[in-house]
Amino acid sequence: MQVSRRARAMQESPIRKLAPLSVEAKRRGIHVYHLNIGQPDLPTPPEFLHAVAHFSEPVLAYGPSDGLPALKDAVCEYFSRYRVHLRPNEVLITTGGSEAILFAFNVVADEGDEIIVPEPFYTNYNGYAQMANLRLVPVRTHAEDGFHLPPDEVLEGAISPRTRAFLLCSPNNPTGTVLTREELERVAALCQKHDLFLIADEVYKEFTYDGRVHTSALELPGMESRVIVVDSVSKRFSACGARVGALITRNPQVMAACLKLGQARLCPPTLEQLGAVAAYQLGEEYFAAVREEYQRRRDVLYDKLTAAPGIVLRKPRGAFYMIVKMQGIDDADELAAWFLRDFSYQGETVMVAPASGFYATPGAGRDEVRIAYVLEVPKLERAAEVFLAGLEQYRSLAPAATRQVR
Amino acid sequence: MQVSRRARAMQESPIRKLAPLSVEAKRRGIHVYHLNIGQPDLPTPPEFLHAVAHFSEPVLAYGPSDGLPALKDAVCEYFSRYRVHLRPNEVLITTGGSEAILFAFNVVADEGDEIIVPEPFYTNYNGYAQMANLRLVPVRTHAEDGFHLPPDEVLEGAISPRTRAFLLCSPNNPTGTVLTREELERVAALCQKHDLFLIADEVYKEFTYDGRVHTSALELPGMESRVIVVDSVSKRFSACGARVGALITRNPQVMAACLKLGQARLCPPTLEQLGAVAAYQLGEEYFAAVREEYQRRRDVLYDKLTAAPGIVLRKPRGAFYMIVKMQGIDDADELAAWFLRDFSYQGETVMVAPASGFYATPGAGRDEVRIAYVLEVPKLERAAEVFLAGLEQYRSLAPAATRQVR
Repeated sequence: MQVSRRARAMQESPIRKLAPLSVEAKRRGIHVYHLNIGQPDLPTPPEFLHAVAHFSEPVLAYGPSDGLPALKDAVCEYFSRYRVHLRPNEVLITTGGSEAILFAFNVVADEGDEIIVPEPFYTNYNGYAQMANLRLVPVRTHAEDGFHLPPDEVLEGAISPRTRAFLLCSPNNPTGTVLTREELERVAALCQKHDLFLIADEVYKEFTYDGRVHTSALELPGMESRVIVVDSVSKRFSACGARVGALITRNPQVMAACLKLGQARLCPPTLEQLGAVAAYQLGEEYFAAVREEYQRRRDVLYDKLTAAPGIVLRKPRGAFYMIVKMQGIDDADELAAWFLRDFSYQGETVMVAPASGFYATPGAGRDEVRIAYVLEVPKLERAAEVFLAGLEQYRSLAPAATRQVR
Repeated sequence: MQVSRRARAMQESPIRKLAPLSVEAKRRGIHVYHLNIGQPDLPTPPEFLHAVAHFSEPVLAYGPSDGLPALKDAVCEYFSRYRVHLRPNEVLITTGGSEAILFAFNVVADEGDEIIVPEPFYTNYNGYAQMANLRLVPVRTHAEDGFHLPPDEVLEGAISPRTRAFLLCSPNNPTGTVLTREELERVAALCQKHDLFLIADEVYKEFTYDGRVHTSALELPGMESRVIVVDSVSKRFSACGARVGALITRNPQVMAACLKLGQARLCPPTLEQLGAVAAYQLGEEYFAAVREEYQRRRDVLYDKLTAAPGIVLRKPRGAFYMIVKMQGIDDADELAAWFLRDFSYQGETVMVAPASGFYATPGAGRDEVRIAYVLEVPKLERAAEVFLAGLEQYRSLAPAATRQVR
């Protein structure tokens, strides 16, 4: 029995596919620093788990398809702290930000339609594009520009009669780039000119450094009917296992369509929505501490890496990732495998995510890796040293020995 | 900004669309018996909630995309009690049974392909068929036959070159029908003859009465590569709000494809998986008590309804629904609205689900409603009386007054 074409076409997670080599390295007694996955290590707020533990209904019943009213209210209150004023009927609670992406794709585009997305981009967009039978059209951004958007003519050149939306992620996974308000306005103008939606993945909104302020697509004037924001508690409250997110839009037609999709899957998980309600009561001091910690890590990693030769890296201003371009490397997939399979430095190695999986353009990103800084500063410093030692050694090896022909 | 064609084509939940009329009736002081929704009223096992409350990790992290290993093991152990022996790599934990349906649809069929399903059927299949851009092809079953499958030639007549699978739900929502082993074997033979998958929604497997035993599609010999089972803890443990289900298949290619879809959505909710692990430790006495309670309710409702004139109803053997066909009614949508809008009996009324929404064939089921028996026996007896009193009154009204032209 053959599975469907679309199932065969779907890529494996580039972040997870190296996992067996990592298991093998650990079995050989090598310590592996995980720089490959965006799983925050900071504790989930006790308030979250406390609220879950105090659930006292006799029946864990279906909740409303659009989410618990208390959580919708909490999301509105939360966004109002960021200059965005929402009504509860503009918020649909989803099963993680992932589901918000799936709903948005289905509602803005039909099969064969196109969504334009700057690359490199969050690799899971690909899985949802396959499921929704639509095509992600990449526009390249570059390490040398700090992965900021290309000029208008490049963005506009990607628009075809099948284009239905732009998809932006800021602060960005995998690059850490925070788009400026001016960049958002440029995309908004194109959306208005060509009658397109703007899907804005803002799940890292609090994670901005050096005093940078994240601009939400919901702040853009005249874009009320076009903007769909993807939101999540996963990174915000270090609660990735909760699977609680939100889709936010002021377009009632879009919301009605998303609600029909929401009814098909009945409801998001109830207990973890209760946890999220409690977490939203946390004040700004919670986020200030989180932000400070990540900024310190970003600084350590950035300083270490840019002190080494042959690294292209502009200081990222948000999220907890960076894309590191390495001169002299032409197959970062092989480099990442080599780190786990063939290398160790004083009994340690690193696991990084090859960047090729974050690009849709074949061959792009083969000299880049994504590094996530979800380790405490001393470990992160050490991991950077191990990474640079490996990179130096790898570069010094004869090409024939290191670079497999694929 | 216009939403996509598929979003516009998606039907609203027929179970939920009467909700505003119900709210309005309650505002007028009328007590509404909810016979319309499959939300079990039995308490969630305390073991479930206890396990959730005792989560003690500092970080609520992403779990594995295929589910927590302890839960996969628990599912295997549980199925072994039902003569089905599974290995953990044949089980993928999903976010509710709903997600298992979505994954199965995407993996067996490409856009435009067809899946054959006996109607009436669980209405949410429609939403997932829309999302997967495939076509559900109904084969009619009838109240007079107790909604059992039609002869082979009817089933086979529905097969086209685009057919990829049969989809069966047993015990059935919305009919309560439990397919016999012989019926399953007939469908299995057609799957083998025409090289089709068999998707079996078995989320009500424990809910069988009168000593009937549910046969799982996983028990069918020679069907290992074709069967995909949809499973859920929602009804099993009265835990609909948990959003924990499973997709089970012995076809490694199907499992690998589903796992890629699973990676795109990262993981199912962690805390509620922990609850499910604990619930699976419950012994057979838990289910015996649950089964006994639902059988008693089924008996009360069946006896009351079949004692009234003009009702076509064969005794359903499972789940907690029945489809009630009413002679002299030609628009049960209007009847259901009338119950909420215009009728009360000693200050009370009922909310039922018009069956038309469970049919894909236009015009089918307009003389039928689905009744769920998720109320305690005394309330259920009373609700049946109110329903029958209303039905009698409605039938006696002049047609012009009761039947709106649509």
